[in-house]
Amino acid sequence: MVPFKLNGAKSRLAPALTPEQRRALAFAMLRDVLRTVSPFGRVTVLSRPGLKREEIWPDGAACEAEICESELDLNDAINAFLEDQAAMGWPCDILIVMADLALLGGRDVEGILSAEGDVVLCPGRGGGTNMIMIRSPSFRTCYTGVSFPKHIASAQQAGLKAAVFESFRAGCDIDLPGDLLELRLHGSGEARALLERWGACWEENGS
Amino acid sequence: MVPFKLNGAKSRLAPALTPEQRRALAFAMLRDVLRTVSPFGRVTVLSRPGLKREEIWPDGAACEAEICESELDLNDAINAFLEDQAAMGWPCDILIVMADLALLGGRDVEGILSAEGDVVLCPGRGGGTNMIMIRSPSFRTCYTGVSFPKHIASAQQAGLKAAVFESFRAGCDIDLPGDLLELRLHGSGEARALLERWGACWEENGS
Repeated sequence: MVPFKLNGAKSRLAPALTPEQRRALAFAMLRDVLRTVSPFGRVTVLSRPGLKREEIWPDGAACEAEICESELDLNDAINAFLEDQAAMGWPCDILIVMADLALLGGRDVEGILSAEGDVVLCPGRGGGTNMIMIRSPSFRTCYTGVSFPKHIASAQQAGLKAAVFESFRAGCDIDLPGDLLELRLHGSGEARALLERWGACWEENGS
Repeated sequence: MVPFKLNGAKSRLAPALTPEQRRALAFAMLRDVLRTVSPFGRVTVLSRPGLKREEIWPDGAACEAEICESELDLNDAINAFLEDQAAMGWPCDILIVMADLALLGGRDVEGILSAEGDVVLCPGRGGGTNMIMIRSPSFRTCYTGVSFPKHIASAQQAGLKAAVFESFRAGCDIDLPGDLLELRLHGSGEARALLERWGACWEENGS
């Protein structure tokens, strides 16, 4: 499951990118993430109402993904989704993947899928939690502030076995202007190509 | 080989730590790194003149490390060291490990040692190169600015096969105040313990 912030995404990139560029980058990163995770199972994009399939895939769907709309804030929407799955008897385990992991590779997904534990947490820089593999219907997320220690505590309080999966690429979410350097240096997908194109423009403008 | 900046180390932590704290943290991180790498082979600390063994190990050496002194700047000192090794017939391959990799674990060292390639580069955040495994006497380092792409280019120009080893922990050098959060969340060594102690003080001071 990939939570996606539809409006005002990537606001902390404002010093480096225009609102139109930020929106385009957010969608390009979402597509990169969907292409990476889709070989591993059914994918759901969780979003505020209004996300159109054709805005994700203007040239036709490159991979299948359901869209699940919610009026709730990110963390509440994720937990409502988890509660729905629990009410349905937890038909399958759930991997949460942030939509801005533009460096994510198939090996990172394989890595977290193969890690044992009721809950497997993948840390992001700055105390975030960039992926969570959830194998228990009783786990709930705490996506506020420095979430990583909160998720560890949340698993412990629920009596669940928490494991940690660490990865350079999965640890790198694209939030701040400095993160764009990571994307240009280590990326290989659509988001990186977009940035290269804009980067060329910046150079031409002498900035 | 662990290059260590003896004076004015960790200056970019100035907004968060006093000069004394920065020096103490730099030495604690150095010790953490030495403990991590020493099981894998002979270790040399490369430093400006004046580094005393007893300042590294005030309570007696916890592990063996040679000290190699140089008046040169970091990059020139490393390359002079590499040239010396080449002149001696390259007695063994060389792993360069930055002294501020406070999260580094034995698995990260195993990982880069087992990666194939004439040169194996381990990226750090911000375009740095946090470890380099060098198996060819003709490689030279370029530790200035955004070094990672320079090292890739340097290997290519020398006709060497460059590989990349990526790791969340090895990618995390402690340079900026925000990096201290990584150390507190994910560290387990002496540097983290030091920070915890100071952290307690900060909390008591209400800051």
